[in-house]
Amino acid sequence: MISYKCGNFCLVKNSSECKARLGQINTARGFIDTPVFMPVGTYGTIKGIPCCLLRDAKVQIMLANSYHLYLRPGADYIKKSGGIQQFNSWHKPMLTDSGGFQIFSLQNFTKVYDDGVEFKSPINGEKHFFYPEKSIRIQKDIGADIIMCLDECTTYPVDYNIAKNSVDLSIKWAKRCHHEFYTYSSMTDNTQILFGIIQGSIYNDLRIQSTYEMLDINFDGYAIGGLSVGEPKHYMYSVLQSVLPILPTNKARYLMGVGSPEDLWKCVELGVDMFDCVIPTRNGRNGQVLTSIGKFNIKNSKFKNDYNSLDPNCTCLTCNEYSRAYLNYLIKSHDILYMSLLSLHNIHFMMNLMHTIREALKLDIFIQEKEKFLKQYNVGE
Amino acid sequence: MISYKCGNFCLVKNSSECKARLGQINTARGFIDTPVFMPVGTYGTIKGIPCCLLRDAKVQIMLANSYHLYLRPGADYIKKSGGIQQFNSWHKPMLTDSGGFQIFSLQNFTKVYDDGVEFKSPINGEKHFFYPEKSIRIQKDIGADIIMCLDECTTYPVDYNIAKNSVDLSIKWAKRCHHEFYTYSSMTDNTQILFGIIQGSIYNDLRIQSTYEMLDINFDGYAIGGLSVGEPKHYMYSVLQSVLPILPTNKARYLMGVGSPEDLWKCVELGVDMFDCVIPTRNGRNGQVLTSIGKFNIKNSKFKNDYNSLDPNCTCLTCNEYSRAYLNYLIKSHDILYMSLLSLHNIHFMMNLMHTIREALKLDIFIQEKEKFLKQYNVGE
Repeated sequence: MISYKCGNFCLVKNSSECKARLGQINTARGFIDTPVFMPVGTYGTIKGIPCCLLRDAKVQIMLANSYHLYLRPGADYIKKSGGIQQFNSWHKPMLTDSGGFQIFSLQNFTKVYDDGVEFKSPINGEKHFFYPEKSIRIQKDIGADIIMCLDECTTYPVDYNIAKNSVDLSIKWAKRCHHEFYTYSSMTDNTQILFGIIQGSIYNDLRIQSTYEMLDINFDGYAIGGLSVGEPKHYMYSVLQSVLPILPTNKARYLMGVGSPEDLWKCVELGVDMFDCVIPTRNGRNGQVLTSIGKFNIKNSKFKNDYNSLDPNCTCLTCNEYSRAYLNYLIKSHDILYMSLLSLHNIHFMMNLMHTIREALKLDIFIQEKEKFLKQYNVGE
Repeated sequence: MISYKCGNFCLVKNSSECKARLGQINTARGFIDTPVFMPVGTYGTIKGIPCCLLRDAKVQIMLANSYHLYLRPGADYIKKSGGIQQFNSWHKPMLTDSGGFQIFSLQNFTKVYDDGVEFKSPINGEKHFFYPEKSIRIQKDIGADIIMCLDECTTYPVDYNIAKNSVDLSIKWAKRCHHEFYTYSSMTDNTQILFGIIQGSIYNDLRIQSTYEMLDINFDGYAIGGLSVGEPKHYMYSVLQSVLPILPTNKARYLMGVGSPEDLWKCVELGVDMFDCVIPTRNGRNGQVLTSIGKFNIKNSKFKNDYNSLDPNCTCLTCNEYSRAYLNYLIKSHDILYMSLLSLHNIHFMMNLMHTIREALKLDIFIQEKEKFLKQYNVGE
């Protein structure tokens, strides 16, 4: 553990081979070694997995959705419960997204105005209005360690002009978020940190504009949003190559909603520090398994007589206890246990993957380890 | 651990206060301290709970349904997988019921013949015919440590004559089961033990007849079936008081489908050694929680702001980690995790309860401990 504090991100080591970097994010609830992958606990819990098993899996930080938590059980309620980490017994760092992505992706009769966004609750149809200050207060009340600005997240494909308007609006909102973040401090702690979100769809000039304007506001970290929404991969890499070199080396860079094991290697190589994605959990609940020898769906009847563990290189509870045959059977007999077991395995896999990446960076053998991983991973595809 | 073997049941100590007894059942997969409660894992798994957490909870033996396992994944398949304890990674003793209860309770167009029972699979509508020899072979193939005879289980209320016919049929089938059990040994182990099931509904004379005829066949243990199917409690106690004194002291007595914490104390007092019931698991999945200070439903909105653990006297994972408020919230947000957490807590509760009962018997203070338990338990009702 590094004992000094350099802002909220400490760059530990640069790769000599690529843009990848080893670092640490300092939060009130402990250091986070980067590159890091954050599992998604929409309602403040990873579906089907008790917190102690997540800690056993060496999960460092969990992402929760402030949109969902705002609707149920409510930010006020969580605040009174001592904050989200106390309420959900996680006790480790949490990041909340601003709700922007959900508002737009769930399309709940959303109306965007210059000063905020109106949407209907999917729970009871009630109208709600989210605006930058409100999003910040909600996240502060929830008690997240890392808070995200409210942004307008575009879908793919989107016209240049719509993307441009979205960048402008997101900048306007980011300024208001930043102001509110440093103003609204009563009954909230000041150990929380705030990230801005860069938008601009696949248009590199808009991305660059968005980046410079975010840098002017000066955030604790920078997220790249609006990617991994259906665009071809080369656009994502192109955007990263445009944006990342402009970002300061002493701030964390967070690529939202990414990703697959291949993407993690590729994007770390380009200089990303933080990731989140529903792949290990949502796909796990659908039977999809990530392993060191590739991904597969355990529902496939070919696993009926396969008494091997999911992954020969995994030591998670699922791999320690259960065979592929049994997991295949659990799904067929509709036992909810399979959801927990597959999600848990996939999370273990992602944590091990990030550990491998960090170890490779420590030894400065990132490219070699990446190739080794992908070679083995693609065997099973 | 007791090093000698006396049949399959060893009576360790009689209570000086009542008919309760401390004992041990010897199985190929280890000793089982009695009185014992067996959680129900219909498909060979307790819904939502990995085996390692059951072992942590000190579960000694699990019950599985041979009817369900026969339909999916099939007894042959389980046999090829190395037996149920290998297949489900439980590795500890298992008891399978014969399928009788399911065939009759699920009422799948059941037709009872003198030599067996025909029913339709609820999975695909296929016709199946269960008969005593088949039920034994299925259970032997599954690899259960304790095997139950196929019986005809009556519902409540039932006419005397129907109950009488059911007793006669169950005896006829029990003889065939017993014969098959000792005949069918190819590719099965001979460490398995066989229990007969006493029927006769609420009619004490039929129960006594059934008991004597079962004793004539000579089983490794005796179960009392067809109770806890809706009859008033006093009938159940009356049947137990008729049957238990006739049973030999050197055989285990198993009361099927029971029960509630109050019933466990009462029936141990009357001399029962073994129990199974879906209460801790099925009720747990519906939000009902068993605690040392009574049972309650965690869905109740009064728990919204209750930051205590479920049970102040419990050290299970759920109580260690989560508050009532959070569990109430988990249910409201439809997270499957609540099912696992509540079932796990309830199983811990039952295991602790049986441990308390056994300790009370060791110290010969059963009545005192029973009263202490019930006084505290009824506070919360």
